[in-house]
Amino acid sequence: MSALRAAAVEAAPRRLAVLGTGVVGSAFVARYARLRAAGVALPALSWLANSRHCSRVDRADAAGEALAAACASGARGDGALHWLAHDDLGAGDVVVDATASDAVAARHGLWLRRGVDVVTANKLGQGAALARADEIRAAQAVAGARYGDGATVGAGLPLLSSLRALVAGGDRIHAVEGILSGSLAWLFNGYDGSRPFSERLRLAREQGYTEPDPRVDLSGEDVRRKLLILARAAGWALEADAVSVASLLPRALAQAAVARDGDWRELDAPLADRLAEARAAGGSLQVVGRLDHDGASVALRVLPAGHALAGGRGTDNRVAIWSDRYSAQPLVIQGPGAGAEVTAAALLDDVLALHRA
Amino acid sequence: MSALRAAAVEAAPRRLAVLGTGVVGSAFVARYARLRAAGVALPALSWLANSRHCSRVDRADAAGEALAAACASGARGDGALHWLAHDDLGAGDVVVDATASDAVAARHGLWLRRGVDVVTANKLGQGAALARADEIRAAQAVAGARYGDGATVGAGLPLLSSLRALVAGGDRIHAVEGILSGSLAWLFNGYDGSRPFSERLRLAREQGYTEPDPRVDLSGEDVRRKLLILARAAGWALEADAVSVASLLPRALAQAAVARDGDWRELDAPLADRLAEARAAGGSLQVVGRLDHDGASVALRVLPAGHALAGGRGTDNRVAIWSDRYSAQPLVIQGPGAGAEVTAAALLDDVLALHRA
Ligand SMILES: NC(=O)c1ccc[n+]([C@@H]2O[C@H](COP(=O)([O-])OP(=O)(O)OC[C@H]3O[C@@H](n4cnc5c(N)ncnc54)[C@H](OP(=O)(O)O)[C@@H]3O)[C@@H](O)[C@H]2O)c1
Ligand SMILES: NC(=O)c1ccc[n+]([C@@H]2O[C@H](COP(=O)([O-])OP(=O)(O)OC[C@H]3O[C@@H](n4cnc5c(N)ncnc54)[C@H](OP(=O)(O)O)[C@@H]3O)[C@@H](O)[C@H]2O)c1
Repeated sequence: MSALRAAAVEAAPRRLAVLGTGVVGSAFVARYARLRAAGVALPALSWLANSRHCSRVDRADAAGEALAAACASGARGDGALHWLAHDDLGAGDVVVDATASDAVAARHGLWLRRGVDVVTANKLGQGAALARADEIRAAQAVAGARYGDGATVGAGLPLLSSLRALVAGGDRIHAVEGILSGSLAWLFNGYDGSRPFSERLRLAREQGYTEPDPRVDLSGEDVRRKLLILARAAGWALEADAVSVASLLPRALAQAAVARDGDWRELDAPLADRLAEARAAGGSLQVVGRLDHDGASVALRVLPAGHALAGGRGTDNRVAIWSDRYSAQPLVIQGPGAGAEVTAAALLDDVLALHRA
Repeated sequence: MSALRAAAVEAAPRRLAVLGTGVVGSAFVARYARLRAAGVALPALSWLANSRHCSRVDRADAAGEALAAACASGARGDGALHWLAHDDLGAGDVVVDATASDAVAARHGLWLRRGVDVVTANKLGQGAALARADEIRAAQAVAGARYGDGATVGAGLPLLSSLRALVAGGDRIHAVEGILSGSLAWLFNGYDGSRPFSERLRLAREQGYTEPDPRVDLSGEDVRRKLLILARAAGWALEADAVSVASLLPRALAQAAVARDGDWRELDAPLADRLAEARAAGGSLQVVGRLDHDGASVALRVLPAGHALAGGRGTDNRVAIWSDRYSAQPLVIQGPGAGAEVTAAALLDDVLALHRA
């Protein structure tokens, strides 16, 4: 920490701005209030915003009311974006980004340059254009502010931290391969051919495992962003369009303005064929993201029985890392990689880590 | 870091003392020299000691010569212990403990109280009596020195760091279960009954997977120590004798002064029985360490096919952690958990982390 920044942090109590009051943002605020009530030292929650409204929180114990106010308030407007453009955040303050907004992600670098720590579940900071990811890295060096992104991949599983620790220890990463989408993992872990794939998708939607529009999952877009984040954590300058993505969606369905319920049946025949192929080879199906020195890809693959990524369950993410150190057998990390609770916990871990350092 | 310590660290360049010139200590020195030659900022290697001798290293590039001198020198004596009793290490210096010596582990707390950082592969610091583990924790608070123990369990796999991060984030640990011995993992992963167990043990010894006296592995003692370290990382005050250990050794063999080659055949019949039992249940055999709020145990267990710990390979360690956050599905971390190279790399990671902070 620079002396300047250290002095600023000493002088003013840290303040916390939470952007996004959806499922992750709300779970964050609830967990924040619980930890604070239990006496854990945390910066004071001072602003709470969604796309419509921004609430100033005056008392720490009023987080619940402010959340209700922020959530309830009127129709879409520029409330939060207006605030964003005029915020008085400075060195030592903390922004938690629990939105999926590109406009908010575009500000990560600006905040960092002002010494504001950024903690994010939003993948559009490090998982979009390389220039933006580079700016986020460069900005941290300027004012010594830190960027907490443990929630963006694997919802706080020790993936990014492990990758960065290996690189910091002089290890060269050879390849990273992973089941990086909780919803796709769930869809394929239980797809045994006894029911059409579209039936399983219906179940997944009912249980809230997919995005409201499941095409975000099925297109491979979410996995692509996570691969970009992993690549950049490994120190690789991977351009956003350098990931080859084999979407599960037929072109017409991918391009349609909205997807209708009946449309999903178009997936049934092609996926039944792939399943038969996997069965014949004694393997299982999963959408796998892979990163190595030849490139990066997202594709539905047949995993042979003994494969490092085979054998997961439920919505588990599973990632294998090969490096100088882990060359024969990879380092494998597995666990629930989605869900509001683990994601909110990952955001809070990152906020607490700022506080400890 | 306290202001006092920060000042001391600023004033004097850090010096590094490496204790132990066995397989891990030698691999550490080789890796240290490689990283330093590549320009990585590391404290200056100033002493190198084994049980017989202590060499003062005068130039950074003379590490190899000093290692040769330390390794080659005479018969057993009190060289290193003499030095230990008179060392002038102070705040900001670093000790790397690559011995298995109880006398060295007994000094961890003393060094920490003087502000000396301790990085260790020696399990007898946190894996012995509770009083010693408590003293190591308390001593860090006094002078702000840090204790790097990533090499003690899983040879640097992100196990202890993940456990501590969960606890720091307000999570309560429910249970930890693991395959914690690389040699036992290898023995049972490949034990299919086609050959007697003693044959497999002979292979393991030939390939250097076991301790020189394999009874250290087969007794469960090594796993017991690792469980104690995990328990203490989770913040549990577990007494050293509170782990129930089911040794694989018949009593006479456990108590014999030396084990003769023929003795291992005594293991064949009982283990063949256990294997038959596992097969009948459709499962596999492994020695599992388990820690929960009811206690801690080390035992040979039958793992059902879908179990979180089933399905490892080679010498892989595999650990599952259940907590508030990971209650339905555990966090699972897997990878090579033994071997001089990964252990030395883990020690260097911990040294580098001190330097960064
Ligand atoms: N859910 C998970 O399991 C999970 C896991 C890992 C990461 N994530 C990531 O976490 C983020 C949040 O996910 P979610 O499931 O909570 O989404 P969500 O329920 O759709 O909530 C998104 C929130 O962001 C707000 N928002 C959008 N634009 C904004 C702006 N310009 N300024 C301020 N707030 C803005 C929205 O405001 P309105 O209320 O006004 O619409 C809404 O409150 C996403 O990036 C997601 O990818 C989610
Ligand atoms: N090998 C692995 O895969 C692995 C993995 C994780 C952790 N570890 C741990 O790492 C440590 C070292 O293992 P290793 O395999 O390198 O053992 P090793 O080959 O037997 O070497 C032990 C070294 O410690 C030295 N030593 C003993 N007492 C000493 C004392 N009082 N002062 C200074 N040096 C002393 C020995 O000196 P002499 O040369 O004079 O005998 C020897 O150089 C052990 O605690 C082990 O459990 C090993």
